[in-house]
Amino acid sequence: MSFLEKIDSPADLKRLSRNNLPVLADEIRKVVVDVVSKNGGHLASSLGVVELAIAIHYVFDAPRDKIIWDVGHQSYAHKLLTGRREQFHTLRRYQGLCGFSRISESPYDAFSTGHSSTSISSGLGIACAQRLKKEKAKVIVVIGDGSMTGGIAYEGLNQAGDIHKDLIVILNDNELSISRNVGALSSFLSRTFSAKYLLDFKKEFGEFLKSLPKIGDDIYQFAKRTEDSFKTFVTPGMLFEAFGFEYFGPIDGHNLNHLISILNNIKNLNEPVLLHVLTKKGKGYPPAEKNPVFFHGIGCFEVKTGNCKKKRNSIPSYTQVFGDAMVQLAKDDDRIIAVTAAMPEGTGLVKFAETYPDRFFDVGIAEQHGVTFAAGMATEGFRPVVAIYSTFLQRAYDQILHDVCLEGLPVIFAIDRGGIVGEDGATHNGLFDFSYLRSLPNMVVMAPKDENELVRMLATALAHNGPIAFRYPRGIAAGVKVENEIIPIPIGKGEILTGGDDLLILAIGRSVGEALIAHETLLKRGISSTVVNCRFVKPLDADLIGSLVKKIPRVITMEENVRQGGFGSAVLECLSDQGITNFCMERLGIPDLFVEHGPQRLIRSKYSIDALAIVHTAEKLLNPFNHHYMTVSARF
Amino acid sequence: MSFLEKIDSPADLKRLSRNNLPVLADEIRKVVVDVVSKNGGHLASSLGVVELAIAIHYVFDAPRDKIIWDVGHQSYAHKLLTGRREQFHTLRRYQGLCGFSRISESPYDAFSTGHSSTSISSGLGIACAQRLKKEKAKVIVVIGDGSMTGGIAYEGLNQAGDIHKDLIVILNDNELSISRNVGALSSFLSRTFSAKYLLDFKKEFGEFLKSLPKIGDDIYQFAKRTEDSFKTFVTPGMLFEAFGFEYFGPIDGHNLNHLISILNNIKNLNEPVLLHVLTKKGKGYPPAEKNPVFFHGIGCFEVKTGNCKKKRNSIPSYTQVFGDAMVQLAKDDDRIIAVTAAMPEGTGLVKFAETYPDRFFDVGIAEQHGVTFAAGMATEGFRPVVAIYSTFLQRAYDQILHDVCLEGLPVIFAIDRGGIVGEDGATHNGLFDFSYLRSLPNMVVMAPKDENELVRMLATALAHNGPIAFRYPRGIAAGVKVENEIIPIPIGKGEILTGGDDLLILAIGRSVGEALIAHETLLKRGISSTVVNCRFVKPLDADLIGSLVKKIPRVITMEENVRQGGFGSAVLECLSDQGITNFCMERLGIPDLFVEHGPQRLIRSKYSIDALAIVHTAEKLLNPFNHHYMTVSARF
Repeated sequence: MSFLEKIDSPADLKRLSRNNLPVLADEIRKVVVDVVSKNGGHLASSLGVVELAIAIHYVFDAPRDKIIWDVGHQSYAHKLLTGRREQFHTLRRYQGLCGFSRISESPYDAFSTGHSSTSISSGLGIACAQRLKKEKAKVIVVIGDGSMTGGIAYEGLNQAGDIHKDLIVILNDNELSISRNVGALSSFLSRTFSAKYLLDFKKEFGEFLKSLPKIGDDIYQFAKRTEDSFKTFVTPGMLFEAFGFEYFGPIDGHNLNHLISILNNIKNLNEPVLLHVLTKKGKGYPPAEKNPVFFHGIGCFEVKTGNCKKKRNSIPSYTQVFGDAMVQLAKDDDRIIAVTAAMPEGTGLVKFAETYPDRFFDVGIAEQHGVTFAAGMATEGFRPVVAIYSTFLQRAYDQILHDVCLEGLPVIFAIDRGGIVGEDGATHNGLFDFSYLRSLPNMVVMAPKDENELVRMLATALAHNGPIAFRYPRGIAAGVKVENEIIPIPIGKGEILTGGDDLLILAIGRSVGEALIAHETLLKRGISSTVVNCRFVKPLDADLIGSLVKKIPRVITMEENVRQGGFGSAVLECLSDQGITNFCMERLGIPDLFVEHGPQRLIRSKYSIDALAIVHTAEKLLNPFNHHYMTVSARF
Repeated sequence: MSFLEKIDSPADLKRLSRNNLPVLADEIRKVVVDVVSKNGGHLASSLGVVELAIAIHYVFDAPRDKIIWDVGHQSYAHKLLTGRREQFHTLRRYQGLCGFSRISESPYDAFSTGHSSTSISSGLGIACAQRLKKEKAKVIVVIGDGSMTGGIAYEGLNQAGDIHKDLIVILNDNELSISRNVGALSSFLSRTFSAKYLLDFKKEFGEFLKSLPKIGDDIYQFAKRTEDSFKTFVTPGMLFEAFGFEYFGPIDGHNLNHLISILNNIKNLNEPVLLHVLTKKGKGYPPAEKNPVFFHGIGCFEVKTGNCKKKRNSIPSYTQVFGDAMVQLAKDDDRIIAVTAAMPEGTGLVKFAETYPDRFFDVGIAEQHGVTFAAGMATEGFRPVVAIYSTFLQRAYDQILHDVCLEGLPVIFAIDRGGIVGEDGATHNGLFDFSYLRSLPNMVVMAPKDENELVRMLATALAHNGPIAFRYPRGIAAGVKVENEIIPIPIGKGEILTGGDDLLILAIGRSVGEALIAHETLLKRGISSTVVNCRFVKPLDADLIGSLVKKIPRVITMEENVRQGGFGSAVLECLSDQGITNFCMERLGIPDLFVEHGPQRLIRSKYSIDALAIVHTAEKLLNPFNHHYMTVSARF
């Protein structure tokens, strides 16, 4: 029996001797690599924090003490140690464990995470609550250096230092290239630099300053005023000390003894503490150590070699098509700028970055800044293309509204991962963008039916002098040829794809393909349908839609977006504004809930946004005995 | 002729000798105080930067050089110096000058501002654009210390230091209580601390470090590594140096000679520069100097005394009623926490803060953090009430979605300034909240018809175990009595206020009052209407609305929100979902544009969201010759 198999809760972990913990770490790594190789997942970052997770649970007392893993994708070891070992093989599978942290999954997940940089804020809220309840639980937040670039993390640090509550922030630093030498020194410093020694040093330093000619005394006064600045100088935690945190580190995040010792010390402090830990992404699994970016988020792979199991599909992903089109179009259009928020690979912009390094801007995990930065460039005549996943663009809602739309600036939003994303689940689905974007004045919102239309929409956006967005799905494109000549689409024009008088199917984006399949199935059942590729959520092709609904008053709309305020809702508004009544309509789309993780196909089926759902809905609509539609049906 | 009267553009300013500038500053202050005393506006912060505005325009060359005033409410002197002197008396008036910066108002406004903390991002975008175009214009950003608490400012700083573009950030520090003595030293430092001297000092300091026993040499190595840390230590700009900015200051922001000298020096640097300037809010107008908070945003006042002209209305504002109810309800409910984002006065929470200091959290201009912080507290059993203006809550859209709604945490959103705000205009109207909130799963969205219902909705929210929001207007409440016994409203229940078979008016929030007035007017014209106070945008009272529309198929909905995706759109969805067709409906609400500044009443009339608009719409709906509605009308 392995050590891991004996651990059903952190209490079991505490029974192990320190000597056994490195073996446990190896066991955890093996399970993580094995499961992720089968289910896909975030491998590199999870492997990097195995020792950290062990040390935290060894020292602290969860779930009384509250542990928050920022982003949550590195919480696999934490899951294994907190009663989820036996379900771990279901990771990211439908109805299995979530790939991120969820309050609803386990009492050991103190807060639900998925989007970056929120953990200091939620942790501080919990710490303040503990204080008010006069409870003494510790709050431990683990946040990566990447997440520290997000503005909300800074907002949280700022208040935490200010109100001086008891909060432990562990900075998981896996990118700064700090050499072994310096890292060792720092580790040494953080262990031996006693407060007394510091005070002595400070005094001596003060005398030294006073002895300087001319302005020495003034500087000394100055130094005294900014009380902690000396300490700041000798440790690398300048930033965090400035925020009022007690800084420790950097220390080796794979040395369990060190980690446990320092956490035991920190545990007894009652103030905001920042522990700077250096870890290696992919630690312990050579292929991931070598290529941590590739193994950040990964599909199935062969454990032995680290090679992807899936053969490269001959059909490219929407992401790839977008990236290629950017490179191609930028050749003859100097105005094109690419902006990404820490996702050059995910948004397909690596080639662009290599080809046009001056016109490529990675702003870090800082969607708000990225959008306003792009707005600034747009005022100077450029056409910045902001490529951000739908779910992350939510962070920049106010900037889109206030900094882009208000003055109608020509910023282009290339929204990847729109719709159902699959295994990443609730925190990562892109199901709100139609709703939140179409309510904004001056904004144009599009979604392509296939990769050729995606490229045309990019060209459309470049030809348009105002804010404009197109959103496209995660995964493999439709498999059509991208034409050599890229023709922009007239703004607000949909296209009729099939003729048929029984039923009108108004579809947008990926759903157009489902509508076409449904059309074929329905034909076989004697139902003819007109399928419209609406292309634009805003402005809708009101003339086309209005005239068609008057002719064919049985309507199905379909979208991969929540039903509230989305594309179907826009169609209802458009018909109401034209005074068109006497039609019956079913709006297919995501119901009013958060959609869980699972295979895209299964999720689409479950929530009735596939071809079969259209077929079933059509049969309901066309059934004259259906009570709902009696009024309209009676007319036929 | 005064100096100011000779200035039609910054070129004219440059013709003045330095000696005359203090007189010009006085003249500007006089005009600003005079106009704001009549029109209302942001007085204290505008008075604080008069010298800064003069110095910037004296040294730099706008509009070639780009000047961005963060928030924009302190840009009055800038407006006076950039060709808007003769229109300045129209400040904040309908079709007059905007109270903030607008690209569309003047070529001297390099970016539109209104919401806080965006200027570094937009400025950096412009700086990058200049570099790409191989132009050499300077970009000058003025940002207050308050705005520096917003996460996007940090995101901007972070990238600016990283990519090292030519950008001048002027930190307008009007709150830190830095004594005259220290301020003077700093001013001295920033003028005489030559680079050479610094280098010498650094070397000497290194020798000193090496001479220390035990770990001295290690520290020296360490210090060498973090190259600029020494400089950081001796100036107060620790934070900014850490971000890669060259730091100067702090200097006296009212000393024109100093300002001009240092700006002339800075002008020649080609790197990110931060100039730290100390100013006094309300400078030069004693009542504002004494009470800068009161004079931050102010209505009309008497110049001589600083007293408000308007008599205190006997009817309280919605804000006051909310604040009082918070104090009252918190007495018996320990779960209640108040969270504000730098707006304790604006959101009516001053009394709460005084009464329950432990349960009051001002997070700074950090709406994102504030919401996630509240979510953290909610996980511990508290009922945080996040009181934020509608327009600023847009900043936290993703946090509401991802950190609150995902797990259905009981965070209460008290959304002040919902709807038309009046003179603050486009950047401050609260016209999107119904749309962006109602698309979120688990969220309840309410709006009260009067102050009594506001208090009931607060009680409703406290009784509800999930995310819930109520939004209420800026300004004086309806004038009804707030009942002693506060009875929660059943979630999702509207109320019928009047009976009538000709017309159904579905109203929400403030519009309910307009609907009742319209009802009376229509009665006199022989049209009887049923007015429903819907109370809930989500969940709608679907049963009530459905059954009424079946009986009375001529419907008007009314809301102070954009028509896209708002309350009326929710009604359309609700009817469609119930299969109810054969009605005609007009959705009154804000059309698809940004609403400008002007008196609330005028704006409501212009955009058809007042009683008269309902009357006109009713007559149109009931006219049998109206082509649009023929189909339905034929049934009667």
